[in-house]
Amino acid sequence: MKLLRVNLTEMEITEEKLPEKFRRKGGRGLTSEMVLDEVDPEAHPLGKNNKLVFAPGMVTGTSAPSSGRISVGGKSPLTGGIKESNAGTPFAQSLGRSGYKAIIVEGKPEDSEARCILEITSQGAELKSADELEELETSETMEKLLESYDDHNFCLVGPAGEWKMSMAGICFNDPEYRASRYSGRGGLGAVMGSKGLKAIVLEKRIQDVELADEDLFRQGQRKLAEGLREHDVTKPGGTLNSYGTAALINVLNQAGGLPTNNFSSGEFDGAEATSGEKLAEIVNERGGEGEMGHSCHPGCVIQCSNVYPDVDGEEKVSCVEYESDWSLGANLGIDDLDQIAEMIKICNEVGVDTIEAGVTLGVAMEAGVVEFGDGEGAIELLEEIRKNSAMGRILGNGAEFAGKAYGVTQVPTVKGQGMPAYEPRAVKGIGITYMTTPMGADHTAGYTIAPEILSVGGEVDPLKAEGKAELSRAFQATTAFVDSSGYCLFTTFALLDDDNAMEGMVDTVNGVLGTDYTVEEIVEEGKEILKKEREFNLKAGFSKSDDRPPEFMREEELPPHNEIFDVPDEELDKVWDF
Amino acid sequence: MKLLRVNLTEMEITEEKLPEKFRRKGGRGLTSEMVLDEVDPEAHPLGKNNKLVFAPGMVTGTSAPSSGRISVGGKSPLTGGIKESNAGTPFAQSLGRSGYKAIIVEGKPEDSEARCILEITSQGAELKSADELEELETSETMEKLLESYDDHNFCLVGPAGEWKMSMAGICFNDPEYRASRYSGRGGLGAVMGSKGLKAIVLEKRIQDVELADEDLFRQGQRKLAEGLREHDVTKPGGTLNSYGTAALINVLNQAGGLPTNNFSSGEFDGAEATSGEKLAEIVNERGGEGEMGHSCHPGCVIQCSNVYPDVDGEEKVSCVEYESDWSLGANLGIDDLDQIAEMIKICNEVGVDTIEAGVTLGVAMEAGVVEFGDGEGAIELLEEIRKNSAMGRILGNGAEFAGKAYGVTQVPTVKGQGMPAYEPRAVKGIGITYMTTPMGADHTAGYTIAPEILSVGGEVDPLKAEGKAELSRAFQATTAFVDSSGYCLFTTFALLDDDNAMEGMVDTVNGVLGTDYTVEEIVEEGKEILKKEREFNLKAGFSKSDDRPPEFMREEELPPHNEIFDVPDEELDKVWDF
Repeated sequence: MKLLRVNLTEMEITEEKLPEKFRRKGGRGLTSEMVLDEVDPEAHPLGKNNKLVFAPGMVTGTSAPSSGRISVGGKSPLTGGIKESNAGTPFAQSLGRSGYKAIIVEGKPEDSEARCILEITSQGAELKSADELEELETSETMEKLLESYDDHNFCLVGPAGEWKMSMAGICFNDPEYRASRYSGRGGLGAVMGSKGLKAIVLEKRIQDVELADEDLFRQGQRKLAEGLREHDVTKPGGTLNSYGTAALINVLNQAGGLPTNNFSSGEFDGAEATSGEKLAEIVNERGGEGEMGHSCHPGCVIQCSNVYPDVDGEEKVSCVEYESDWSLGANLGIDDLDQIAEMIKICNEVGVDTIEAGVTLGVAMEAGVVEFGDGEGAIELLEEIRKNSAMGRILGNGAEFAGKAYGVTQVPTVKGQGMPAYEPRAVKGIGITYMTTPMGADHTAGYTIAPEILSVGGEVDPLKAEGKAELSRAFQATTAFVDSSGYCLFTTFALLDDDNAMEGMVDTVNGVLGTDYTVEEIVEEGKEILKKEREFNLKAGFSKSDDRPPEFMREEELPPHNEIFDVPDEELDKVWDF
Repeated sequence: MKLLRVNLTEMEITEEKLPEKFRRKGGRGLTSEMVLDEVDPEAHPLGKNNKLVFAPGMVTGTSAPSSGRISVGGKSPLTGGIKESNAGTPFAQSLGRSGYKAIIVEGKPEDSEARCILEITSQGAELKSADELEELETSETMEKLLESYDDHNFCLVGPAGEWKMSMAGICFNDPEYRASRYSGRGGLGAVMGSKGLKAIVLEKRIQDVELADEDLFRQGQRKLAEGLREHDVTKPGGTLNSYGTAALINVLNQAGGLPTNNFSSGEFDGAEATSGEKLAEIVNERGGEGEMGHSCHPGCVIQCSNVYPDVDGEEKVSCVEYESDWSLGANLGIDDLDQIAEMIKICNEVGVDTIEAGVTLGVAMEAGVVEFGDGEGAIELLEEIRKNSAMGRILGNGAEFAGKAYGVTQVPTVKGQGMPAYEPRAVKGIGITYMTTPMGADHTAGYTIAPEILSVGGEVDPLKAEGKAELSRAFQATTAFVDSSGYCLFTTFALLDDDNAMEGMVDTVNGVLGTDYTVEEIVEEGKEILKKEREFNLKAGFSKSDDRPPEFMREEELPPHNEIFDVPDEELDKVWDF
């Protein structure tokens, strides 16, 4: 295995031997350690000293189920800290089959107008000028690339990345070449854009993944697949497969934890109208190109994605998932799935994170720029981003930025990143994750929703603060490993409830890498990753003050439970006592 | 002596006994300690938990020369840290004669549309509704107030403060009731605006300052006045009096330290055309209402202010000082004093800091929003602030913000505050002050320009880094005391070169307060103030990383000396080794 280093100052590509310490690693574990090793924590995120690291998970590229994830690491323009943002895409699988353990993109061309693409094929890697792709939206970029490349997967940025907006994501294709899969969070698209790298084109199958112990791998694969096929959440015809992640809308609304109107309430009148159940009903009724149970990459058992059709059954967008549905729905007081789908489409085309976009629009509504509930107004605001207007610049740089632009005090962010779809005042554990993860507010960093709301992996009272620091820490550590393995986070629904599936997951990792991880050790391995990420942030100037909720959540009670975020500072700090 | 506490949540005013520990204090020493004592460092700067503290200097209100300074303290919306911003104005003298050692403004009304004024007269203090003043510009606000109040001085915010823009300053009247004197830096105008406090109206002379030792005071006053009248920089007909502070344009240009085109060079072709000498020539030639040697408050010996006339001799604006001349001139590549005067006028009317405005426009030009040297374009950008457009929101929130809006990496700020008119790469000591003062980039916090450029208080090589940490520390400590005394910082030109004047300054303080400060002790007193300010910042989440230059100054050489900012991090940290 090798590393591919791409220097855009010199326009040079070099292959490097993989340092021994990275042999056992993959995904997030790899990107975070490389970022810590190679990026000056005080570097400007959009300057020549920031780097982007792309790494497939440990088992990505094999036939392990639901393992097509790629991690992208770098210093985030949104948070100013370390960022690992992962996506599920066939591109990840191709990278797993490329012979490269990671791609490191560094430097920055003198000419800020220049655009290039990185082409990686069995013939080698090459940088090619691609000025003709400048400022093209994601679908159009994908179409242009498909004219020249017919056996490849793609990674690219939309115009928002080229405009260096800090909510810009990095986009990948899905199995049908839609520009729809995102390493969305943290603005890494702006880092890619700042380097003039418009796209990476990757031949689908350069070389198969070498298995250190094929028998062990196959055994693990069977155990894990079995677990996924049996768990109510992950099984075919189960919750995620039938309704997509948006199944959570009703669940969180009933728990009083669905952030509504810029985190002013935990209940939304329009929950039913924007629920996963309603989504499935619309998709099934309209038929045509619509589809529930769509896969983001081949070999997924869960298949939680979807294709949303318009009233004529023509494809509108893929996909309407819980976070996007909420951020552009409940969070804005908008209860029309067609409008929400339209907004997701704009985000995908311009190339921005739907969560950050929705949270930002919520803040703009708080400032009175448009009214809560005004779907057309919200669409107009996203069109401002698309036009790169001054208003677009305000919105394109995220919720914290928009809040500052308008002097808003109710800004639901941590470390500059907008909060996802779970209200910390109603679900205390996830709040602790938001505040303490090195990533900025991020539900995927330690998804305590499982035991707090879904009775998966145990059952705890979401409104109680007690014991939640330990809970969040355990979830964060396990997640850091899962994000390294290449498995989709949703596999953990099965892993948490099924020891056999958990063992299977570990078996596959050991089967690929020749390692001897045990189930117990993966938490320790996860903690090592967290420590490295935190070390980067501390060197970048972060302190305990950055592990705190926004002031308003300490002071203003959230209906319907009328709770504040009452987790003491010491409890937040305790997450890092290990 | 008492404290006046004004609570805008409850619309209540209370008088409090002055705590003993504040008896010996004034100005910055008072505001910084009160802010540390009373404001949660993690509070939102625009929320109800931030406070504004107004305090006259120790001798302000007496007949001590050049002592009409007021300090305003609070948590800064621009830097997120503690802020003391001071101004020279008759209002300061009236506050010194009010019987109040400080005014503390706290809380925030529920109704964000409500406006009020605080009226302080010999009859007492009162809050009055003033919705009719909403969004009026500063001159118009002043005119309206003058219709009702004829023996008062005024403190007010322009619309930028009400719009909570983080470059909004707090405006005071000059002796002729121009809305022209500013506590400009750090966005405290936005804090005042966030509280709905449009203005403070203060009766001119409620009660005279009580002198603890009148003979000592008179003796000190004579010694200081003598020193000011003899020093070449401060004497009548001296440099400051004849050319204003803009006398520095040619000096810094010759030293290669005049930041030009957004800190791309230390030399400006248009220096001569925008110099203090040229300014004086224009003012004297045009005559009419123009005036050099204008005073910002009665009793100033130095008289460095001016009134700039238009081509017909009619008053355009007061005043064209070095920082504004530079920020809106050389920093933007603009060499036309009439255009610069026009821009200063807009800043004064809208109520924003001219330094931050100019540095922000420089960053916008770096982003290509308008071209360097385009005076009309620059004026148009300031008009966008005036209109409160989306572009105005981007610009009105300062240089760091505008840099982020456009993904610019060359952003000359420290702790989020724009750098003033001295290039750190060409004048290393002032760079250390910029980086280490708790205030964010601020020349007045430790004006090492005196020995580095002006041969005042010694003579050291501006390009050398050695010994500059100690130099900056000594200047920062002394300045913290001077900012507490109520004396204009420009008195230090005389104080540094004339032991007798220095003694006189200390005598006046002791004469007023009944203290026994010695010349040696004022540095120690200053250090105590610095420690308190730093304590606030550390609690607010600042770290050593916040005491660093922008990355580009470490990497890109500045013409004509082709120097980078080569002061090591350890040297920067050494400033705080005491």
